[in-house]
Amino acid sequence: MAYTRDEIADWFRGLQLEISAAIEAEDGKGRFEEETWERPGGGGGHTRVIERGAVIEKGGVNFSAVHGTLPDKIKSALKVDSDAFFATGVSIVMHPENPHVPIIHMNVRYFEMNDEVWWFGGGIDLTPHYVVEEDANWFHNELKAVCDQYDSQYYPRFAKWADEYFYIKHRQESRGVSGIFFDRLNTQTEGKGKAELFAFVQDVGKRFAPIYTTLMRKYKDAVYNEQQKAWQMHRRSRYVEFNLVLDKGTKFGLDTDGRIDSILMSLPPETGWKYTQSWPEGGEEERTQHYLRTVHVPK
Amino acid sequence: MAYTRDEIADWFRGLQLEISAAIEAEDGKGRFEEETWERPGGGGGHTRVIERGAVIEKGGVNFSAVHGTLPDKIKSALKVDSDAFFATGVSIVMHPENPHVPIIHMNVRYFEMNDEVWWFGGGIDLTPHYVVEEDANWFHNELKAVCDQYDSQYYPRFAKWADEYFYIKHRQESRGVSGIFFDRLNTQTEGKGKAELFAFVQDVGKRFAPIYTTLMRKYKDAVYNEQQKAWQMHRRSRYVEFNLVLDKGTKFGLDTDGRIDSILMSLPPETGWKYTQSWPEGGEEERTQHYLRTVHVPK
Repeated sequence: MAYTRDEIADWFRGLQLEISAAIEAEDGKGRFEEETWERPGGGGGHTRVIERGAVIEKGGVNFSAVHGTLPDKIKSALKVDSDAFFATGVSIVMHPENPHVPIIHMNVRYFEMNDEVWWFGGGIDLTPHYVVEEDANWFHNELKAVCDQYDSQYYPRFAKWADEYFYIKHRQESRGVSGIFFDRLNTQTEGKGKAELFAFVQDVGKRFAPIYTTLMRKYKDAVYNEQQKAWQMHRRSRYVEFNLVLDKGTKFGLDTDGRIDSILMSLPPETGWKYTQSWPEGGEEERTQHYLRTVHVPK
Repeated sequence: MAYTRDEIADWFRGLQLEISAAIEAEDGKGRFEEETWERPGGGGGHTRVIERGAVIEKGGVNFSAVHGTLPDKIKSALKVDSDAFFATGVSIVMHPENPHVPIIHMNVRYFEMNDEVWWFGGGIDLTPHYVVEEDANWFHNELKAVCDQYDSQYYPRFAKWADEYFYIKHRQESRGVSGIFFDRLNTQTEGKGKAELFAFVQDVGKRFAPIYTTLMRKYKDAVYNEQQKAWQMHRRSRYVEFNLVLDKGTKFGLDTDGRIDSILMSLPPETGWKYTQSWPEGGEEERTQHYLRTVHVPK
């Protein structure tokens, strides 16, 4: 079955609503506020933001479906000939209040120039303030289970891609425990039809809520102290650096005059860059730091 | 007199020490800590950071003198043929504790490829959390007085350049009340010798301490409330966006594998991105917002 771009967009919009409902239910207090916006160049979206919840301090689940003409800068970056484009997807970032609950990010997207030139992309990665290896392994196994239903090469290939993508080169550390990342999947690259590739992307999207609500539930009542809160502020500052310096979605948004508040909803509600800051020798902060500098470093 | 690159670097190092001493004296409590570093590719610097002072919450006065081989990316961005380079300068950013004291930034620098190809650059701009027009005008007059000693075209030309440079396009607002910015000044562009251009850059550098200590003194005891502190966090978040997304010095530093802690010392000790935040109608926050969206917008 050949999905139209509108059918794909409608499915993504449904995913946005499903994920927001699941997060609200687990949070128990925060509610998503929705804003609907139009893009002057064509299309628009629904931005859903939750703030000051019981678990989520700030989070966004954004849906957009935009079309128009690509700026030359993007056209050459994407190496495409035509400049008419359509792009739709869902983007999520959650910043929890409790430093024991990890930050999470997911994006699933579809891009189309015309009937022949289209692709899917996406990714999901986890950024614990404190790495718990058991959770990191479980998270990767969840993603592997989704990938393995489609292609035994997907997990190793997309996990490696994530290690490369979510690496903060100027800090020589990973953003977190990585995950999967993929882009420009189409029939030429994968030998699979649009329906099958869309099914894979749908399954990635559907796995988000069960994964994250499990982690919310597991850690939302964990006790934390001031030092752990300070460490969370520090880890969040690296998240800002990644998003503003390296993230391609952010760049694409800024370069196509996207809705700025929706693009930058990924940034944390509170953070900071202290110059002098030290963490106890042999403590959990050092252990996480070591993990980030060694485990998911691109080969 | 033909200055050598080492003489220029030594003068900049002296300026760093003079400015740190003046800020310490005005702060009364904070002391600069100095770290000396070497760049693997050649050269090094002295990073001086003040934290948790009575007036300055976090600030850096950095000196560096580096040399080596330019990465291709920078070479083509600078449109230069050769790839051996020498660069020296002083960079300053001050984040005060009190939202009535403005953030300030200055950079003065010298870049050299060989005896024939060299230039000076620099800039100074003021970012009040609350714009006080009287101070903004005084600040501009101070800069104009320095410029006018050298060329009557300098102030209008460099103030316009600053309006363009310090504009946050994706927010459609200026970073602050602007100031002056100039780059690649040399004999070909200015019809002035190296000694005269260096004298101009020196005078810009020497004007920094009297300007900023005057503003520190004027506002350090001003009373502020929680809302003003929240507005400061908000304005600081825009400062982060400018530095990580737009600032050329930051990009140059990241692309040449500069010392990351020195490059990013410009980032504020505490900030945050709230999604929903409102300010009283007709209040001082709205007035500053309006100023930033109208007064220094590039023509």
